[in-house]
Amino acid sequence: MNHIAPKHPVVPGSVTTGPIAGSRRIHSSPEGHPGIRVPFREIALHPSANEPPFRAYDTSGPYTDEAVRIDLEAGLPSVRGEWIARRGFAAAERRAVTAADNGHAAPEMLVAPCPAKRDLLVGRAGQPVTQYEFARAGIVTEEMVYVAHRENLGRAAMPEGAEARHADGERFGAALPAFITPEFVRDEIARGRAIIPANINHPELEPTIIGRNFLVKINANIGNSAVTSSAADEVEKLVWAIRWGADTVMDLSTGRNIHNIRDWILRNSPVPIGTVPIYQALEKVGGDPAKLDWDVFRDTLVEQAEQGVDYFTIHAGVRLRHVPLTARRVTGIVSRGGSIMARWCLSHHRESFLYERFDEICDLMRKYDVSFSLGDGLRPGSIADANDAAQFAELETLGELTKIAWDKGCQVMIEGPGHVPMHKIKENMDRQLRECGEAPFYTLGPLTTDIAPGYDHITSGIGAAMIGWFGCAMLCYVTPKEHLGLPDRDDVKTGVITYKIAAHAADLAKGHPAAKLRDDALSRARFEFRWQDQFNLSLDPDTAQRYHDETLPKDAHKVAHFCSMCGPKFCSMQITQDLRREAERMEGMAGKTEEFRAGGGQIYTPAAE
Amino acid sequence: MNHIAPKHPVVPGSVTTGPIAGSRRIHSSPEGHPGIRVPFREIALHPSANEPPFRAYDTSGPYTDEAVRIDLEAGLPSVRGEWIARRGFAAAERRAVTAADNGHAAPEMLVAPCPAKRDLLVGRAGQPVTQYEFARAGIVTEEMVYVAHRENLGRAAMPEGAEARHADGERFGAALPAFITPEFVRDEIARGRAIIPANINHPELEPTIIGRNFLVKINANIGNSAVTSSAADEVEKLVWAIRWGADTVMDLSTGRNIHNIRDWILRNSPVPIGTVPIYQALEKVGGDPAKLDWDVFRDTLVEQAEQGVDYFTIHAGVRLRHVPLTARRVTGIVSRGGSIMARWCLSHHRESFLYERFDEICDLMRKYDVSFSLGDGLRPGSIADANDAAQFAELETLGELTKIAWDKGCQVMIEGPGHVPMHKIKENMDRQLRECGEAPFYTLGPLTTDIAPGYDHITSGIGAAMIGWFGCAMLCYVTPKEHLGLPDRDDVKTGVITYKIAAHAADLAKGHPAAKLRDDALSRARFEFRWQDQFNLSLDPDTAQRYHDETLPKDAHKVAHFCSMCGPKFCSMQITQDLRREAERMEGMAGKTEEFRAGGGQIYTPAAE
Repeated sequence: MNHIAPKHPVVPGSVTTGPIAGSRRIHSSPEGHPGIRVPFREIALHPSANEPPFRAYDTSGPYTDEAVRIDLEAGLPSVRGEWIARRGFAAAERRAVTAADNGHAAPEMLVAPCPAKRDLLVGRAGQPVTQYEFARAGIVTEEMVYVAHRENLGRAAMPEGAEARHADGERFGAALPAFITPEFVRDEIARGRAIIPANINHPELEPTIIGRNFLVKINANIGNSAVTSSAADEVEKLVWAIRWGADTVMDLSTGRNIHNIRDWILRNSPVPIGTVPIYQALEKVGGDPAKLDWDVFRDTLVEQAEQGVDYFTIHAGVRLRHVPLTARRVTGIVSRGGSIMARWCLSHHRESFLYERFDEICDLMRKYDVSFSLGDGLRPGSIADANDAAQFAELETLGELTKIAWDKGCQVMIEGPGHVPMHKIKENMDRQLRECGEAPFYTLGPLTTDIAPGYDHITSGIGAAMIGWFGCAMLCYVTPKEHLGLPDRDDVKTGVITYKIAAHAADLAKGHPAAKLRDDALSRARFEFRWQDQFNLSLDPDTAQRYHDETLPKDAHKVAHFCSMCGPKFCSMQITQDLRREAERMEGMAGKTEEFRAGGGQIYTPAAE
Repeated sequence: MNHIAPKHPVVPGSVTTGPIAGSRRIHSSPEGHPGIRVPFREIALHPSANEPPFRAYDTSGPYTDEAVRIDLEAGLPSVRGEWIARRGFAAAERRAVTAADNGHAAPEMLVAPCPAKRDLLVGRAGQPVTQYEFARAGIVTEEMVYVAHRENLGRAAMPEGAEARHADGERFGAALPAFITPEFVRDEIARGRAIIPANINHPELEPTIIGRNFLVKINANIGNSAVTSSAADEVEKLVWAIRWGADTVMDLSTGRNIHNIRDWILRNSPVPIGTVPIYQALEKVGGDPAKLDWDVFRDTLVEQAEQGVDYFTIHAGVRLRHVPLTARRVTGIVSRGGSIMARWCLSHHRESFLYERFDEICDLMRKYDVSFSLGDGLRPGSIADANDAAQFAELETLGELTKIAWDKGCQVMIEGPGHVPMHKIKENMDRQLRECGEAPFYTLGPLTTDIAPGYDHITSGIGAAMIGWFGCAMLCYVTPKEHLGLPDRDDVKTGVITYKIAAHAADLAKGHPAAKLRDDALSRARFEFRWQDQFNLSLDPDTAQRYHDETLPKDAHKVAHFCSMCGPKFCSMQITQDLRREAERMEGMAGKTEEFRAGGGQIYTPAAE
């Protein structure tokens, strides 16, 4: 897991705002729900395209909306406040912040608390609190309506044939409908196959759904710098990651000021925030795993749940009896949470308190609708250790815990590896679906080889695309600095874009009915030499344009009917355009081709689309 | 296809030399063949590792050998000269170089011819010339002995069990033996399943084998700059690409000086050089495809074959009747060679002269042992066009031509796409094997989505890893500048390393018996905090070390038992090392685990390795 140490923040003390090149943030409401405003990014195309603006999924939050003034001290505007207010949760008193929560930061080093205050809400016993409980009770929440519209990219239902044209794919048992309805969302959540991480104390959230019958999501990790210069710099890490497409962000901060920074992040985050509470609990006991106990852990869960954290990584699957299974591994235990719990179990020669107290953890998380991300503390850290007994023993325990959490009303996803060669990836997905009752899978990579430190966004992007195709619901990014150091801004962007590629490649291969629209729009722009449209439709318009301009900087070349690869004389695209005009006159020839096709039989099998 | 325009050449007029960090170039001879010296790269490990130096495949040529003085004017030392001399080929008179060969470069702009001269050899009718002909005749050539040793990474045969441990994988019908013998190589070549591109006029070549039962290979494309400053700068593009791992290099130069530059490249290339002769032929007729004819094409084949080019891309599969099949495509014809031939066919309303003269092309290429790379002129240029009728119609024609080329005694590989979503990749591989009688497949990527210009090394690296796993023999790299501009040195390196990752991930997944050795060595180094070994064992030691040092620059940290991700307090690797020591005392506990395993049945299924 990675932390960000921006090397060149835009302006210290501020965050990146303004639209992404060539686009603007818009809102669209699903039919019959004028109060639900779902964000999209609209990319205008050149008039010659004769196409409506292209609508893309948007994770960037109000930061790219020119109509919104960002005020970090006030926090983001409420999205869910009214919906939550109608649910009748109890107002409660906040747990008092302690010096330990901020790692005993000296007063002169203390980051000021975020002034944005929200009333604390807590679910009562007997009332539905979590999205899972609502779904099981047959209730469609506003969050479900919101994500349905978001997943449809604001499309209305298309005619059957049109959907089918865009939806060829191999789904490995996934069941993506042509059009997502709120009822479909409810049903998927009720079956445990999808989650909407959405703490009732995180009203700023723009809800997103994680499940294999939806668009594949990606997570970016951030963490505090050793010396925090300002809260804004910490929020900027979040803003930067979501600008490029992170669907959720995990705050893996350690050390000083983490309570206050977490507050700043949550009040200013439109995406679900995840944490690993054991990291902070360990800080509270001075860094010695053996000193951890249920009380300090429970206290940390309450602290973070009250702040509005949307999902917790809980390494309750690392059981005492699993630890010896790792002894002969090439790289042992590489998960920090896993090694902390293994250390605790061995120190006390006792079963893990996370496992023994799992019921209580569920009861606590349910009250705020904090989703579980059941941690894979024994994930393989090398190709040699992939798919071994330790890993699969833990996965089996995670399956057992999933059922308990569901019984308790909680939303659950399952974390997965790690380092896995390509031929062992599918087994991970298949076993996870089987053992964990189809709960969403959330993997780190996996890295498909160990031999390229410095390029592990790529070694893992390969595995991420594949496991996303096979059914993984969310992909945790890996940056080029993995195994080596702390990622800077460029590394974070590279990691996010790489994972957007992996997720999108997976959506295409699964035949998500809306995925191919963007490829087609960009390819049309490419073929018609609409250079600016090609840049703007890409995942990273700034880089695409910069690379183009390095070779052909003149503005005239943005409309030139050639590019720098072949030059004006031999442009194959230009030749094809000429051919196309001629082909229209070639009816006779086309007729001959038809004859041949009839005679040649399977030679001219129509392509799948 | 890409050209290189280095932005910051090391020193103008020179090439990059010296060993890759932490390693040295060595030579090893197969048993019984003291005259055959096969290069490897030996990476020394820290004494605490208690391991012999790690031996890696080496493509870098004498440039990384400190014992060799590089003299571009003399060309590289001969590797194959004596072997070839014994085969009794005819000495012949060279075709005279014309002004057109160098694009009519003005005298003051003309790059001087390379002074290195070699006698021209031509195979006679009735004698075996090509590796295919030798193989069919049951003759094991020196080249076959050489590549067998090279593929084994200099290993002697290992005990059966040891091989099996490293060789788990899914091979999709490939038949990788635990140990490669020269006879196995001969048999694979005789069956058309592998080629050793090796023009008899390229004695400097260090032979390499391309076939799905061998290590997956990668190709890098280079091309001349618009203004050529010196021959050395052009050779440097080759030297830089092979330094990082390119197994073959295609020279896609156009315009002025291309004949003379090609000479400089061939005399200084230890790897097979491929070209697309139609590009130069088109230059000779002033850039108008309609003016192409058999005479100018034939003359170009002779010109380049005499220089020693090892393989030619020939787009003989683009037939007149295929052209209308591309008319409704989103991106038409994107292959430059394909569009040139389509243009020719339509202009004349005639069948392609490459198709009609294919017999003569074979006879000509056989005389020099130039291998065919049958071009996929109709490869898809977008996700929308993948696996369509045009693409597969051409593939069928390539299959027909493969059999003709074999009958004529030639070595053949087949080029493939292009842009293909993940779920359509395997069909490409399966059809190619079937249509083309298992001739080696050589693909560009494929790119698994169109939406990330600027990152197409990654969109395509995903597809390349997968198709390599499925059986593709060689992967043509794509750089970050694809679709946008001309790659510079950094782009070329990024493209090569990305493709080394893809090829290695494929070797691992196929279960190549030697592939996992490197992952395991690097992971052991990682686990034991041998930082320098970790860098040196990686594909790009310079970048790995630079990234590490950005965060933890002090030398002391290279031996520190932690890294910058978690810091000294929570290092999971350190905790595991402690655990391992304790686990050795936990016999009783291990016993309990065994009991559980016996009782739990399939829960503890032993992992595949």
